[in-house]
Formats: sequence, C-alpha cells, structure tokens
Amino acid sequence: MIIDEKSAGIVETQFYTIDEKIQFESGTEFGPITVAYETYGKLNAEKNNAILVIHALTGDAHAAGYHSETDKKPGWWDTMIGKDKSFNTDDYFIICTNILGGCSGTTGPSSINPETGKPYGTTFPVFTIEDTVKVIKKLLDYLEIKELYSVAGGSMGGMQAIQFVISYPEMVKSAIFIATTSRLSPQAIAFNAVGRNSIISDPNWNNGNYYESENKPDRGLSTARMIGHITYLCEEAMYNKFGRKLQDKDHYDFNFDVDFQVESYLQHQGQIFVDRFDANSYLYITKAVDYFDPADKYGSLKEAFKNSKAKFLIISFDSDWLFPSCEAKEIVNTLMQLGKDVSYCEIQSPCGHDAFLLEYKTQSKIIKSFLNTHIKEEENE
Amino acid sequence: MIIDEKSAGIVETQFYTIDEKIQFESGTEFGPITVAYETYGKLNAEKNNAILVIHALTGDAHAAGYHSETDKKPGWWDTMIGKDKSFNTDDYFIICTNILGGCSGTTGPSSINPETGKPYGTTFPVFTIEDTVKVIKKLLDYLEIKELYSVAGGSMGGMQAIQFVISYPEMVKSAIFIATTSRLSPQAIAFNAVGRNSIISDPNWNNGNYYESENKPDRGLSTARMIGHITYLCEEAMYNKFGRKLQDKDHYDFNFDVDFQVESYLQHQGQIFVDRFDANSYLYITKAVDYFDPADKYGSLKEAFKNSKAKFLIISFDSDWLFPSCEAKEIVNTLMQLGKDVSYCEIQSPCGHDAFLLEYKTQSKIIKSFLNTHIKEEENE
Repeated sequence: MIIDEKSAGIVETQFYTIDEKIQFESGTEFGPITVAYETYGKLNAEKNNAILVIHALTGDAHAAGYHSETDKKPGWWDTMIGKDKSFNTDDYFIICTNILGGCSGTTGPSSINPETGKPYGTTFPVFTIEDTVKVIKKLLDYLEIKELYSVAGGSMGGMQAIQFVISYPEMVKSAIFIATTSRLSPQAIAFNAVGRNSIISDPNWNNGNYYESENKPDRGLSTARMIGHITYLCEEAMYNKFGRKLQDKDHYDFNFDVDFQVESYLQHQGQIFVDRFDANSYLYITKAVDYFDPADKYGSLKEAFKNSKAKFLIISFDSDWLFPSCEAKEIVNTLMQLGKDVSYCEIQSPCGHDAFLLEYKTQSKIIKSFLNTHIKEEENE
Repeated sequence: MIIDEKSAGIVETQFYTIDEKIQFESGTEFGPITVAYETYGKLNAEKNNAILVIHALTGDAHAAGYHSETDKKPGWWDTMIGKDKSFNTDDYFIICTNILGGCSGTTGPSSINPETGKPYGTTFPVFTIEDTVKVIKKLLDYLEIKELYSVAGGSMGGMQAIQFVISYPEMVKSAIFIATTSRLSPQAIAFNAVGRNSIISDPNWNNGNYYESENKPDRGLSTARMIGHITYLCEEAMYNKFGRKLQDKDHYDFNFDVDFQVESYLQHQGQIFVDRFDANSYLYITKAVDYFDPADKYGSLKEAFKNSKAKFLIISFDSDWLFPSCEAKEIVNTLMQLGKDVSYCEIQSPCGHDAFLLEYKTQSKIIKSFLNTHIKEEENE
C-alpha cells in the first residue's frame, strides 16, 4: 500500500453510544445504540464545514483512507474523499457513519443485547430510513454540528440523504443525491424480496438465531448477493465484462460447475460477501429500503421537501436500471416545482448502477464545482 | 369447465419410446428415452400438414384441450390451438412433445434408470438444445412425418424451433420464432446461474439424490422460480399489476412477512411451482438453454441457417427484456442477408416476456395470416 499525499491517510473508526432510547417509526423504543463513524479533515471553528457522506446497502463507516499501513484497500469512497478530491479534506470535515442495523460497528441484529447478553437476532426491531437518519442526527448533536455544508449519498445512501433533508430541513445547506430514488420500483422490491426469501429459506438461518452456531446462512446470503450484483451491473456492462466467454476453458463442461465467466463472477461475489456481512443485517436493511417512500408518507414528494433550504445536486447514470434516471428526474421535477435550487446531471456510463462507485472522475468534476463554486457563491452573495 | 366448439376437446398424452441409444452432443450415448406427446387435428394422407409446437422452459406436452371433463385449465397454448385458432385443428395436425430432461412424461433426471431401478438424478447426462430436437425428430420418424408444415415455439421453445431448422433444414417448410433468441445474453445466463445456485445450495438437493426423501429442494427451486418470474414480467407490467400496493393491509407490518403485493405474487409463484416441477429438470434444462449458441457452434448464425428452405415469421415484444427485440432482429438480419423469406413483427405490449403467452389475439392474426396465406400461396404458385 502506498498512502499518497491526497489520501485521507491512516484513519480510525470511532464509536459513540446514544444513551437514551430512540423512538422508531414502528412505535418501538430502542436503545442503547452505538454508532460507528469516521471523520476526515477538520471541523472549523464555526462548525459549518461538515459534510455527511452516507454509504450504500452493504457499506460501512470506512469511507476513505486506510486503517493501517498494511491495509490492502482504502475506504469505499476513497476516490472521492481526500486532499483536492471531490470532498476536499483541506476544506471540509467529512463524516461517515455505519448504518443502524448494520454489521460494521453500529448496533444491529448481530450486536449483543445488554439485557440478555446474547445477540439481538430477530428481536432487533424493524426500522426505517427515517430511523437511520435519526441515529445519524444524534451523532451530529454529540459532535455539536448544527449545520451540514452538505449531505451526500449514492444508492441507499442517497435515500438517507433525501430523508435527512426531509427530517432536518433547517440543518442542510446542500444535498447530493446520486444513483438513487425516492421509492423503489416494484421490480426493485421484487429483487430484495427474493434475496430475503433466499436467506430465510436457508435452514441455517434458523429464525435469525445462528450467531452461536458454526453453520451460518451463508448459502442464502450468497444467493441474495448474487441477485444484487445482477442488478448493480447492466446488460451492457455484462457484455463488456464477460460476454458469453467461458471461465478457464475452451469448451462446455457438460456438468453443473461454472461454465461462463459471468457465473464465476457472481459466485465469487457471493462467496466473499458472506465473510463480511451479516444475513440478518441484510434482511433489516433491505426492508428499510423497501419501506422508503416519502411521497406516500408525507402525502406527496412536494410536501415532503417543501421546508428544505438546501441547494440540490442530483446525479443519475443512463445505464442504471435499478435506480433509473426517470426516478431521479421525478425528484428533480418536484424540487423545481417547489422553486428550489436544483442541478441535475445524467452521466453517460456503461457501468449500470455500479457507476456511482466507478465513474468517480466525472462525478468529481460535477461535485467539486457544485460544492466549491455553486454553494460558496451563495456565501459571498 | 366448458369445452367450447373451438377447443381441441378431450385429449390424451401419448408416449413413444425410442429403442436405440441417442448420441448426445457431449459425446454420451443415452437411452432408452420415452417421449411424451400430444396431437391435435388429423394428419392428412400426404402427411404434409403437421405443425410442431414446442413449449417453453417449464411447459409440457399438453398444449391444448383438456385431459378430462373435470380439468380446471386447458393446455398451455389452448388460446392458439383449436378450430379456427392460429393453429387450426381443421387444417393442421399439431404435435407437442415434452422436452428431453423434463418432468412431465419425457425421460428426465426424475425418471427411473432401468439399469439401477432408481431415478437417474444427476447421473442423467447434460444435454443441449440440439439433443432435445434430435429426440423430437425420432418421434416424427416414428409418426412417419417427413415434412413439417411449420415448427413454432416461444422462448426456449423458439430456441428449439431455431435448432430444428438448423438440424433438419430440408424438413421444415416454415418456422415461427416467438420471444426468443439465438443465444442468451450474459444477464440471462446470470439469472439462470443464480437460480441453479439456489437449488444446488439447498441442503435437500443432496447432490440430486432427493427422490426417495420426504424433503425435496423446494426452497431452492422456489427461489429459482421467483427469480425467473421477475424476468418474465417487466418494470411496466409490475407497475400495472402491483405498483407499490400492500398485500391485504394498509400499513407496513414491521416484520419479515410479505408486505407488498409483488412479494406475495412471487412467493405464490414459487410455492405452486414446486408441486409441478422437478428441481433437477430445472438444472438440466436451464443449462441446455445457457449452452445454446448456434453462431458459436457453426461459425456464424449465417452459416447455421444457410441450408434452410423455410419461410420465417419472427415475433418479439417491445417490453420483453429477457429476450429483447434486438436479439430477434439479429436473427431477422441474418436471414435477410441469406436472402430467405422472412417476416418480422415487434408487438407493442406491456406484458414483458410473458407476452408470448398473454398477447394471443395479436399473435393469432399474424400467425394465421402467415400460415394460411403466405405459406399456402407458395403451394399455389
């Protein structure tokens, strides 16, 4: 590993435990909740240079830099966070938290319930995207941050960014929604539902009580991940990456082993996923994603966004069929109807939904310009 | 049940056993193979009015009519086969066979291996689409049919129709390929691969030896079917059928039961499928579908079709994303380059891939005209 001069450097995940119980949207009161988070750059004296970046479905708080000199990979958005990068650590104080219900430090179903001394499993309450941002807000309160220079997220992170603006409109100066939607299509719900079904069907899932067993619901979780990856790529990306090419062979094997490269890729993605992710977390988080629908909850998307003071940047990718551009445009149109300051960019990319992680060069230019010119201009007005 | 005057009436599945062993594409010699088939209408004295219709992935030989007075449903293409229907039983002798490797009468992995007295399971040889049409050809030999007035199929049935024309070019007077492709896209392979992975991951699959067990790999097969059904519908069809509507409730349940109608639909499809289909058959047949690629096998699609004497009708549906119109057009273009007589129709439909079974009215007009005018004209020339 070479930590270059633009890197956020060696970083550490920190933890904050919310003492009080939090009222979830379901009515349940739940706590204590520990939040895993990382920060990059420095909070200024006015405490008004904080940017919240929010991870996607299976991400974590480690968005940039390295945990140690021997780390093989940097954080998940290292291309975007660092010196002179989109989210410039010289200018901004960037915060990333692991999602409520996750399995990378923030309290989730695999965490120990202090009342029983055992993992919560499925006694963990079902939560919503509103609940996840409520938890983030508690961390910001603790950090004494009353204003966000920006809140940014891709995919499910974008949903949370949307909800943050809706829940705390006075607090957000700008918002960046990338490759996201204000509600899942039935097709996207269907993919999540089949993924969950695959986990729940795995006998090792055992109604969510598998933490003390040697046999985890790896097969179910792996299948769920494979389904997910089909939706993260697109037809064109699959042709470019694999086509109908065979894996390490010239002819069909005439058995049920892997024949095609695309099969090999998906199996590999499924296999490595089970080592880093908890099956119950997958169930809870996808459910929160399915439930997200501010238009339904607040009467309309217009009603949901009406109190926002933010400037908006919305980015979609033309080959993203999981969260297609038409869904981004629905948000753009709503914000325009409300007379909000909104910029929209559809990036041409052959990478499908994965583009929000891969197409960082184009995104960087757009986001830099938005943060450093468009938002700063207002300050000088 | 009311058997109306246009119905093929009460029909019976018949069986023919091929005595000799058949050489499969893999090199394996395999037999005996029993073929389940049904026929509708009468073979004329010249034996030149036979039409072969071929079923899709999970279909069977029962294409039209009823098996008994108490049958609730007619055959799978009853809308298309009968008196004055697309495939008019007054004019044509229609034959439908269950696919090699299937589980509805034709020899497959669930059949008893006469040498062991036990089901074949995964000792059944992996076969290809070429092998499946070779089996059909043996039945036609037995029926003394040397010429097919037409061969028609949708989806995987269309692949077999394509292969039939390629394997027996002199024998086919016309061919109708509906909602099909000359090779799966990597995305379609991916969906099949995840479905197979789901079956193989089910502990009850037990390496294919589950026939004598009470516990079948129903969960894995059910998940595979759910994945399939997502690909048979399309975004628009899902919006029209379900949107984000909840199933028998007004509010989220905040648990992992079914919330949305689309989830309920998929679960239901998965559950009913396991009662009628064999998990091993699903593995074998999807593998044959993945392997199908005449352009690769014969050097080019042009080379594959060059000896054909048939007139072609090719139908695709604009919302079919499993076998999209662009793949149908590739076949059309190839046939045009070869100077073949080819008609192509893209039908506007909101039903996705399922359209080939649902949009029978539009298809009927086109197919009737093709069979009764276009093909007959040639006879009178």
